[in-house]
Amino acid sequence: MTDEPLIPDEALPRGFRFAAVKAGIKPSGKPDFAVAVADRGASAAAMFTANQVQAAPITVGRRHLVRSGGRVRVVAVNAGNANCATGEAGLSACEQVCRAAADTFGCPGHEVFPSSTGIIGVPLPAEKLVAALPEARRSLSPDAESFARAILTTDTRPKVAHATVNVSGKPVHLAGVCKGAGMIHPQLVPHATMLVYLFTDAAIEPRDLDAFLRNAVEESFNRISIDGDTSTNDTVLLLASGASDLKVPASDPAFAAALSGVCTSLAKQIVADGEGVTHIVELQIEGAASDADALKVAKAVAHSPLVKTAWAGCDPNWGRLMAAAGYSGAAIDPASIAIWFGDLPICFDGGRAPNFDVRAAHEYLRQREYSIRMRVGSGSGRCRFWTSDLTAEYVRINADYST
Amino acid sequence: MTDEPLIPDEALPRGFRFAAVKAGIKPSGKPDFAVAVADRGASAAAMFTANQVQAAPITVGRRHLVRSGGRVRVVAVNAGNANCATGEAGLSACEQVCRAAADTFGCPGHEVFPSSTGIIGVPLPAEKLVAALPEARRSLSPDAESFARAILTTDTRPKVAHATVNVSGKPVHLAGVCKGAGMIHPQLVPHATMLVYLFTDAAIEPRDLDAFLRNAVEESFNRISIDGDTSTNDTVLLLASGASDLKVPASDPAFAAALSGVCTSLAKQIVADGEGVTHIVELQIEGAASDADALKVAKAVAHSPLVKTAWAGCDPNWGRLMAAAGYSGAAIDPASIAIWFGDLPICFDGGRAPNFDVRAAHEYLRQREYSIRMRVGSGSGRCRFWTSDLTAEYVRINADYST
Repeated sequence: MTDEPLIPDEALPRGFRFAAVKAGIKPSGKPDFAVAVADRGASAAAMFTANQVQAAPITVGRRHLVRSGGRVRVVAVNAGNANCATGEAGLSACEQVCRAAADTFGCPGHEVFPSSTGIIGVPLPAEKLVAALPEARRSLSPDAESFARAILTTDTRPKVAHATVNVSGKPVHLAGVCKGAGMIHPQLVPHATMLVYLFTDAAIEPRDLDAFLRNAVEESFNRISIDGDTSTNDTVLLLASGASDLKVPASDPAFAAALSGVCTSLAKQIVADGEGVTHIVELQIEGAASDADALKVAKAVAHSPLVKTAWAGCDPNWGRLMAAAGYSGAAIDPASIAIWFGDLPICFDGGRAPNFDVRAAHEYLRQREYSIRMRVGSGSGRCRFWTSDLTAEYVRINADYST
Repeated sequence: MTDEPLIPDEALPRGFRFAAVKAGIKPSGKPDFAVAVADRGASAAAMFTANQVQAAPITVGRRHLVRSGGRVRVVAVNAGNANCATGEAGLSACEQVCRAAADTFGCPGHEVFPSSTGIIGVPLPAEKLVAALPEARRSLSPDAESFARAILTTDTRPKVAHATVNVSGKPVHLAGVCKGAGMIHPQLVPHATMLVYLFTDAAIEPRDLDAFLRNAVEESFNRISIDGDTSTNDTVLLLASGASDLKVPASDPAFAAALSGVCTSLAKQIVADGEGVTHIVELQIEGAASDADALKVAKAVAHSPLVKTAWAGCDPNWGRLMAAAGYSGAAIDPASIAIWFGDLPICFDGGRAPNFDVRAAHEYLRQREYSIRMRVGSGSGRCRFWTSDLTAEYVRINADYST
């Protein structure tokens, strides 16, 4: 597995073809409609946002997976319009695109999986997407790069990761592309969304695929935060084409590890490309009463504006970390809190570490990527979590409005 | 009740004297040690931060109120050092200041109520405060303005509010001073804290005083947020000197209303003076399943960086409000969400209002103060909540670090 921006040909999962075209939705005129086709269909597992406000493609995608019994032939993703808060008309528009894609690629409508990202509360111009389908079909190719680029919004670069796993001595391929933390139309009602598409040529039944996906997502995409705002459109989709003719057994540890690796790489790439981000922080919380409590502490720290602005300023302000742990809702023991920046001791027994060196701590925080370890008690609960600083540039990006 | 910065002589609660001196804790050299003395003692009620990490004066103040049965003779507040994350030495330093204040003003040590705000994790120089006590005693006066100024940190102005209530046809006076959302020492480990002191010359027993305070705080200080970071030092203290010789009955509606008015005024002044704030927003949430659910929605909206940055840019980005409501944890009905900016219809039935006028909405948000009403379902739960935008200036204030 690597973090390189492009997927080498030999690493591409077999059984998929990709295309991206300009449907005229992004105001920039860039490609904004991406299609992935599993020529002989694929097993599918998906996870969606926990937000109660959900975009039309979330509703439709969920419904299609149920009807197809976890089979997907076509993934159709538009950027530039989130098709969220658009009511019944939004659902109809989404279904219209799915039916046209089904006709174009020769499959039942419920084997089309739709996604949208972009502006919220604006009707989706389904006719533009429908009109772009023939060109999408003509330009299908095994290379996923155009797909990876077309789904981007304010992302500054495409994000891909891949891995090869040996099954019975033969290679199974796994590749993922994603977008995250972007917005499309800063003039009106932009909205950040994470979309992740994972492809493998392994043969895996939908139920097993679902278990693989849940485990991988829990420790990757569910362990990152840029601003704490949960989108209405977040989607992670894992497709298995079976084109390698190699069957991966349920819970196979090698495949699970490879999938986790790809997901963690993509998750960290999303944080690194977050809006205005200048520091990427790995939090290592330990000593909590439970893993769930450790996650509460991590999220409180990761969402604290005071912590995040201190990071932006390379300020070794450990009191803000303590305060965030204190209001996290997790059961902690303030008198035993200890904090390290990398290997530097910062706080011990709830107070300033005897050998605390403010200049060394400041120098450490000047790095673009670093880790902060925090012990909050004597329990065995722990977690890793990746997050970012909060900069004036983030505010500028998201406050930029012009009539 | 008024929001004017100074308290007129005739509005000052009888039975209290105030002083503020320079103890040499604030690097600026400004007054940093404030004392309030109830010459014949006062009934007291207090509320403290819910943060599990609590400063030494919180622990000591709580202990003293228990020992004294809710009596306070002296309030001693230093700014410039939070005396938090300072361990046993911090508790000893706090007690040392209390004992010296008790000697100076002639009362038992447990009738001294201590507070601290400022830098965290640095030993409190108790000897500086002890040395300043004689001058504090010499400069006592009925005017609370010097007190209101000495407790400030990065606040840009003192915050006071007052009210006069008629009890049996005679006036009872009520005045409050507070500081909030400031930091003292941006070079190292600053920390924001809200301190509120309320004084009345009514005669009220501690138990009744406590009930009055809880009700008033719940709908004022517990309904504001600037950045969602709960401090380790937050304190609200209400003292009743009885100097008016007028006994206020338990739950007296006129006194309760006056106290709520003073607390709400101070709470809104804290938001208005928040770090980098350019817009003050009153959220009116309604239609929730319960008042508690309405509060969850308000807090999710008030803490969303995407919502707050949109406000900074006067951007009528109602999709961000919907998304925040959707992940608030409250039970909502997305299809029935409605939003108004003042009287302007923005969102109806979960989608863009038919008569949505983006320019009018933008103009409305250009005001410094405004209200946003959000209906999230058909229940009867509701709340009011005051919050602010998130600006690049907030980031600059809190990221400003220099070695």
